[in-house]
Amino acid sequence: MSSQLSLDNIRSVLIRLEETIIFGLIERAQFRQNLAIYRRGEMWRELEGESLVGFLLHESEKSHAKVRRYTSPDEHPFFADLPKPILPAIEYENPLKPNSVNINGRVRASYEWEIIPFICEAGDDRQWGSSSVCDVANLQNLSKRVHYGKFVAESKYLSQQGRFQPLVRQGDAAALMEAITDEAVERQVLDRVHRKTVTYAAEFESSSCGHKINPDAVREIYRRWIIPLNKEVQVQYLLERGI
Amino acid sequence: MSSQLSLDNIRSVLIRLEETIIFGLIERAQFRQNLAIYRRGEMWRELEGESLVGFLLHESEKSHAKVRRYTSPDEHPFFADLPKPILPAIEYENPLKPNSVNINGRVRASYEWEIIPFICEAGDDRQWGSSSVCDVANLQNLSKRVHYGKFVAESKYLSQQGRFQPLVRQGDAAALMEAITDEAVERQVLDRVHRKTVTYAAEFESSSCGHKINPDAVREIYRRWIIPLNKEVQVQYLLERGI
Repeated sequence: MSSQLSLDNIRSVLIRLEETIIFGLIERAQFRQNLAIYRRGEMWRELEGESLVGFLLHESEKSHAKVRRYTSPDEHPFFADLPKPILPAIEYENPLKPNSVNINGRVRASYEWEIIPFICEAGDDRQWGSSSVCDVANLQNLSKRVHYGKFVAESKYLSQQGRFQPLVRQGDAAALMEAITDEAVERQVLDRVHRKTVTYAAEFESSSCGHKINPDAVREIYRRWIIPLNKEVQVQYLLERGI
Repeated sequence: MSSQLSLDNIRSVLIRLEETIIFGLIERAQFRQNLAIYRRGEMWRELEGESLVGFLLHESEKSHAKVRRYTSPDEHPFFADLPKPILPAIEYENPLKPNSVNINGRVRASYEWEIIPFICEAGDDRQWGSSSVCDVANLQNLSKRVHYGKFVAESKYLSQQGRFQPLVRQGDAAALMEAITDEAVERQVLDRVHRKTVTYAAEFESSSCGHKINPDAVREIYRRWIIPLNKEVQVQYLLERGI
């Protein structure tokens, strides 16, 4: 099995990403919801039909595509119309089976319309630029975390082929969802994320500037959105991979 | 005096930026130095003569310029050849006098050739993309921190005109440097930054993944680079502002 699929390696990538995700949410929570930056239309008619956040995310992806970000098996763009890499290709070790799973549409909708109102105070403080810069980073981090489910699923599949092969053959999504679910591990993740957020938020508290994030809110974001979306990727990936 | 120039407001902006800067340095320190991403030339001949980091920084600034980031008085670009905003202008309250102070060339050189070797383990782990994404954010945050010196200097000038006017009139940079220096405040900043980094680094430690940053190193970065560059901006700004 590829070392990228060892559970220890996957675990350490996901744990390390927690710091990045938690900190990014804390950064964003210092600003108001600023919902205007997620709306398309009249206010941003110069932005090719996109919202301010969508425009900046698209621009970021265009730049990153040029330097071949999306040729890496653990990276997934939000936009389909990206330029070709201008740098020569890298041959990545890719332990995944070919697949087209990309649920960034749902990642973006959940983030903009559910997570933002969940962590930010209502209202508009006109910090549109700073909020959008946070959002682009957060969306890219959440996408990475959610789509890492492909590596998790491949690892589980290879270590328990006898269990997974019949479910994949039957295309039984509900049974696959049950097979990949480990409630004890999910509880560990939620507890660890909560503990980390308590530490970070306490430090921000002492700086006493801006809105503080509630550690329970970060735990909830993992429980309601990050973990379920990650599991959705796992199931879709297994259904596409075949046996 | 504009509320942007109240010492309380300035202080709270700078303290809040500390979290962002410290966290960005911790993020970068998980990767090796990867000095290849700072070199121009053969390896990146497709990148318009830039290094990988320079190319991505330039691309980021082009996008942000389109949505008028650099029309804000607290934002300073690294590149001069940026596109015009495509969004209509915002009238910012600008409490600064007109000036052209921009020391991002020194910010970038210090970061790439001094700070990176100071915080990252030597060597190359091929995490070029992730390292560069961190670098672009760090350079932009450091630039903001350093150039915030303009607001600090204007505030000091307005509150002690009798002291500053003769020095500005004489163009006495050394005396201005002495006049803006407050060693007690500098010690407070260094102690606070050290304390914050201890907290954050301890939390990363328990995640036990990647290289840990040394809290003394972050303190040193403030002492050797951030504070002196900020003071340099203050002096240059006062010399340009006139009386």
